[in-house]
Order: sequence, then structure tokens, then C-alpha cells
Amino acid sequence: MAALKRIAVLGSTGSLGTQTLEVARAFPHRLQVVGLAAGHNHKLLEQQIGEFRPRLVAFEGDRLAPGDYHRLTAPEMAAHPEVDLVVVLTAGKAGLLPTLAALKAGKPVALANKEVLVMAGEMVTGQARACGVPIIPVDSEHSALWQCLRGEEAGQVARLVLTASGGPFRHLPTPELETVDAARALAHPTWSMGPKVTVDSATLMNKGMEVIEAHWLFSLPYDRISVVVHPQSIVHSLVEFADGSLKAQLSAPDMRLPIQYALSYPERWPGPGWGRLRLEEAPPLTFEPPDTARFPCLRLAVEAGQAGGTAPAVLAAADEVAVSLFLKGRLGFTGIPRLIEAVLARHPPLPPPTPRPAPTGMATPNSGQNSRPTARTVP
Amino acid sequence: MAALKRIAVLGSTGSLGTQTLEVARAFPHRLQVVGLAAGHNHKLLEQQIGEFRPRLVAFEGDRLAPGDYHRLTAPEMAAHPEVDLVVVLTAGKAGLLPTLAALKAGKPVALANKEVLVMAGEMVTGQARACGVPIIPVDSEHSALWQCLRGEEAGQVARLVLTASGGPFRHLPTPELETVDAARALAHPTWSMGPKVTVDSATLMNKGMEVIEAHWLFSLPYDRISVVVHPQSIVHSLVEFADGSLKAQLSAPDMRLPIQYALSYPERWPGPGWGRLRLEEAPPLTFEPPDTARFPCLRLAVEAGQAGGTAPAVLAAADEVAVSLFLKGRLGFTGIPRLIEAVLARHPPLPPPTPRPAPTGMATPNSGQNSRPTARTVP
Repeated sequence: MAALKRIAVLGSTGSLGTQTLEVARAFPHRLQVVGLAAGHNHKLLEQQIGEFRPRLVAFEGDRLAPGDYHRLTAPEMAAHPEVDLVVVLTAGKAGLLPTLAALKAGKPVALANKEVLVMAGEMVTGQARACGVPIIPVDSEHSALWQCLRGEEAGQVARLVLTASGGPFRHLPTPELETVDAARALAHPTWSMGPKVTVDSATLMNKGMEVIEAHWLFSLPYDRISVVVHPQSIVHSLVEFADGSLKAQLSAPDMRLPIQYALSYPERWPGPGWGRLRLEEAPPLTFEPPDTARFPCLRLAVEAGQAGGTAPAVLAAADEVAVSLFLKGRLGFTGIPRLIEAVLARHPPLPPPTPRPAPTGMATPNSGQNSRPTARTVP
Repeated sequence: MAALKRIAVLGSTGSLGTQTLEVARAFPHRLQVVGLAAGHNHKLLEQQIGEFRPRLVAFEGDRLAPGDYHRLTAPEMAAHPEVDLVVVLTAGKAGLLPTLAALKAGKPVALANKEVLVMAGEMVTGQARACGVPIIPVDSEHSALWQCLRGEEAGQVARLVLTASGGPFRHLPTPELETVDAARALAHPTWSMGPKVTVDSATLMNKGMEVIEAHWLFSLPYDRISVVVHPQSIVHSLVEFADGSLKAQLSAPDMRLPIQYALSYPERWPGPGWGRLRLEEAPPLTFEPPDTARFPCLRLAVEAGQAGGTAPAVLAAADEVAVSLFLKGRLGFTGIPRLIEAVLARHPPLPPPTPRPAPTGMATPNSGQNSRPTARTVP
């Protein structure tokens, strides 16, 4: 029997948080929840504390019922000696400090927070490299890439191909696209997610940010990361190798499977079969190029990534404001990329805060249960 | 620069042989053809000798023009100290002795010969295990499985899923199936192959034999190897892991890609892009269960594999006779499985010639260019 892995779940009351705890619940002999961190959803957090009895709890405000736990901050929890793996699901920039704290303490981080890599990819991956610990992706796309890269040599990777559902409006004529409102945008065809991510998925901004994440996680230049629209969301991403061979990871769309892989890595645990796919029952799998003319956010994100420095952070901040205005009915759907583009045009990118030493090459996930995962390195 | 790999190509004048030499031609700084073996196509063999100037040549008959080469038998060539990798493409039982000779001499074998594993899987994989050398699959399906297993733990493999084009008659009504003749059967939808393999592909016998091969190559029991019909021949096979995640290998159908991988393994070489696939231009990828009622050869092969002992050899021999009669117009298309079933029914399977020690577990291809590939082991 493998040793119990002690995990801290940061952002435990969100959609990914509850699914992570579902995975923990399914593997009581493999995972021990020793830390929970959440914001203001005290009611759900109290329930989770009651069920998992973590020793460490972080929360905002002061209305949480007292209990048999030690209250601390999220970064303190991330660096706590009783934690083996830090699961960072917190949205927005709140995920940054705990991620850095975990890496500095030499702990692997399972990361679902987009902003951490989009806004501070160089700093965070530099820290992971310096401390020799892996950042394990939780996103279904990056988990797919991570799985396809397993056991392969970094130098033999030609291209990463991220799949995108294409959002609910991929066939909507441009004039009608202008009229899309929040209610309509929040009906995602295959994945059930929070409102911000759902809108980002409809504009393809989500995919653009995933390209930036992939750039940092797998240390490949932007011209070797492409996006293909795959409306069935069954092929979660692909890697093309030097010889032209493609490897793909497939499953039914179910976030619990990539979450489980992030928690079990480098092992794979026989589980409840989340995402298990009978190919014979799958719809035809189709692929089409993304339409960056109608969905400019993808192009804007890649351009911001290529510009580097603070440009991706500006992109993310502008998107946050634009989506918030859209959700309040104060900005049209096609106004989102227009606003972001205008903000980016006024912002000359600054270099990132901490310069890093010259890159040395890319790393792929190790095979072998007992081998120590290597840090990511920049190309 | 990597060292030159010295290869011997057994069966160099066949379809796979000429494609293997095409790969060798494309990588003159990686591959050196030091041996060529062929049957009676002396004209083509002479051309190949003229181009590649191998030191070692094996052929049948005695009409070959003399030259600056050493004539020897195929097994002698396979064991020759100047050979680093033996590529066994010879059809039928002629592939067996060279394969065993190579393994005994501690040389890895790139194997495309079905009969070697179908008829003598236990003996051959036992020999590979005993000598600690890998059998590298050349078939597109087994190459796909080999690639998907790379870097993964053997104990975490749940199932192998072989894809089948389904043959040209997968939608033909049963009455019409009775009337299929050789000319019609020889028009394979996606792969260009020899007549025997093309007929075997149309009856699904080919896929049944591939199941037996997969059983031996990857040491999984038959109930964990399944077949799915995938008419586009783009997904070449898949592996399902313990957690339910599927990994697939994809490319446009082009045998030169799996041949190249078998020759380059464990490296991947940037090449002419054989089989390179633009997903956006691919047809919809579909999957359906195989119809074993209309194509009983698949079922017969799996049953023979499960019966073990000499049953697969009897199956292969009966199929060889049945296909030969069909090609001569002396047996109908649906008569092929009927004849094989009748022969199998009269044959009580005998145990295989050499008993082997108890199995110890399955091995997957190693990652890491410098790590020595481990031998296959039986479950």
C-alpha cells in the first residue's frame, strides 16, 4: 500500500474544490485532506471541515464556527510541513502567493489557477525550477499534454495542440454574435464551470490563456503551440513529436479525471471510472481551425504572450473587467475583445519583475513511480 | 550526433521491405543497411545491393549476380556481430528462425511478421525476456500501443484497444458478402498491402491475429484486449489506463512512420513527415463495434488465442490455405471462416513446444534515450 498523500486544497468551496474533495472522498486510503482554504462560503467550508477534519484551515472574515483546527493564512498552509501536495484552485491573483510559498517549501503544486501562470508564469516556473518541484496541471487540456509527454524526451516534441470546444457560438453569424447576452453565454455545451470561465470559454479567451499556460508549463515557444476546435471535448489535447506522430489523451468530459491524475501522479489509481469512455458510443470526433476573426480573444492572448513582460497580466486584468461588465449587461459580447485590445494598445509591456537566467531546455513528465519529477525549464 | 545504427532487413523486396529501405535512405547519418535478405525477387534485390552496398546478403536460389558481399543464411545474418537491429519483415514461418537467432544473440528485433508471434508467441517472447532484448513492433497498431505505453507503469494498464479499418465490406449485407471475389477483396480502403494481408484485413482475421500479437507483445490477457472499428485509420490504437484515461496515437495512414519509429526507437527523428496529419483536414473520426457475426474470423482468432498451445498456429495455417483457395476462386469469401472453424474444431490444441517459467508481470517501453529497454514479460 502506498503512503497516504497529505493534501491542502486551496479554493475548496468552488466547483473544482468540491470535485477535488469528491476525489479525496473516493480514495480515503490514498489521500488525506489536511488543509482547506476558502473565501466567504463559510457554510460549505464548515461542512467540509466536519467531513474531512483537516488540521489546517484558512478563510476570510471571522464568522467561521470554531473547531478542532489551526487557523492560518493560505500561504502558511501551502508551506506547512504536514502538507505533501498543495492543490491551488483559488481563482485570480489570490492563487499566486500560496503557489510560490508551496514551491519555496519544496512542495509540488497541482495548479488549476490560470492567472498564476498567465500573470506570473516566468516567476512561478522559475521558482519551481529553482526548487526542483513540479507544477502538475489540473486543467483537462494541460493534464492531457502532461500525460502525452510522459516518458517522452523534451527534445523530440514538435508541437502542442490544445483542443477547444469552440464555445456555444462557434457557428453564430457575426451580426448575431453582437446580440449575445450573459444568460446565453453561460450555457456551455460540454463543461459545467463558473460564470467567468464560461464567458472566457465562449470568447476563446480561456483557450488563449491556456496557450500562455502551456508555454510556461511545457517551455515551448508560442509558434509551437496551436489550438484546434474540437466540439465534442473528448480529445483533451495532443502532442506532435519530431517524427510527425501524434499522441492524444481522451475521456468523456469529467473534471474529476484530470483532478484525480494530478492527485495520483505519478501513479494512476483504479477509480470510480470518472470520464470513462466507450469509444463505440462516442459521437464522431471532428476538428476545425479556430475562427480568430470572429473570436479575436484567442489572437489577443497569444500576442500578449508573445509580447511577454507584463502584457499577459494586462490582458488578464482587462478581460476580468470586460467580462464583469458583460455579465452586468454593460458591455456587448463582441465588446469584450474590443475593450481588451484597446487596453493592450495603450500598455507598452514592461519586463517581468524578476529576471531569470538563460533557458536550458524543456522537461517532460518523468516515467517511473519512484523517479523524482524534474522542474520545468524555459526554451 | 548519434552513432550509426547498423540494420539487417529481412524481407527487403516486399512492400514493407521497400518502405523500410525508403526510411533508411532518408536517414543516411542514422542508419546503415549492413544486411539484406530476400526470396526470389533477385532483380530488385540486386538493385538494393547496388544502392546500399550491404556486407551481408541472404537469398534463395543461386541466380544472384556475384558482388562485394558475403552470402549467408537469414538466421546467420540476424545473429551477425555487425548488426545492431534486425528488421524481420519476412512473411510466414520463415521469420521465426531469424527472430530467435537475433534474440539469442542479444539483438533487438523490429518485427512485422505476424506468424512469428501468432504461431510461436510464447517461445519468442520467452526468448526475448531471457535475453533481455526488446521486440519492437512495426505494425501500425502495435507501434501505436508501444508509443502510448511509453513511460507508463505496466500495472496501471487496464486495456489495449486495437483499431480496425473494418475492411471494405463492413457495411455489405450478408447475402452480398457471399458473392465477394478476390478482385473485390483486394481493394483495401486505406492501406496498400500484399494480397494475403488485404484479404485477412477484409475478413478481420488480420485484426484477430493482431490481438494474439498484442497479447504476447504486451503480456495482457485476452479479456483486456479489445477491437474497435475505426474506418478512417487515423487513430492507430489506444491504451486505457487504470484511472479510465485513454491515450491514442494518431497519424495519416503511412507505414513509413511506424517503420521509422521502430528503427529510431527510443529516439524520434525529425523526418520527411510521413503520416503527418493536419487534424483540421481530417475526416470525422468514428468508432463502432466490430460485427463478429458477419466477420467470424476475429472471434475465431481470439478463441484460438485463448485456447492457447498450438491452436493459434492451426488457425494461421488454416487461414493461409483458405485465403489461397479464395484468391484462386476456389472458395467463397464467407467460406474462409467456415473452413478455418472446421479445421479448428477437429484440432484439440496441444501445449506449446517449450514450457516457460511462471509469468512475473508486464513491462512497458522505457522512456529515456539511454535506458535499456526491458524484455516483455507474461502476466
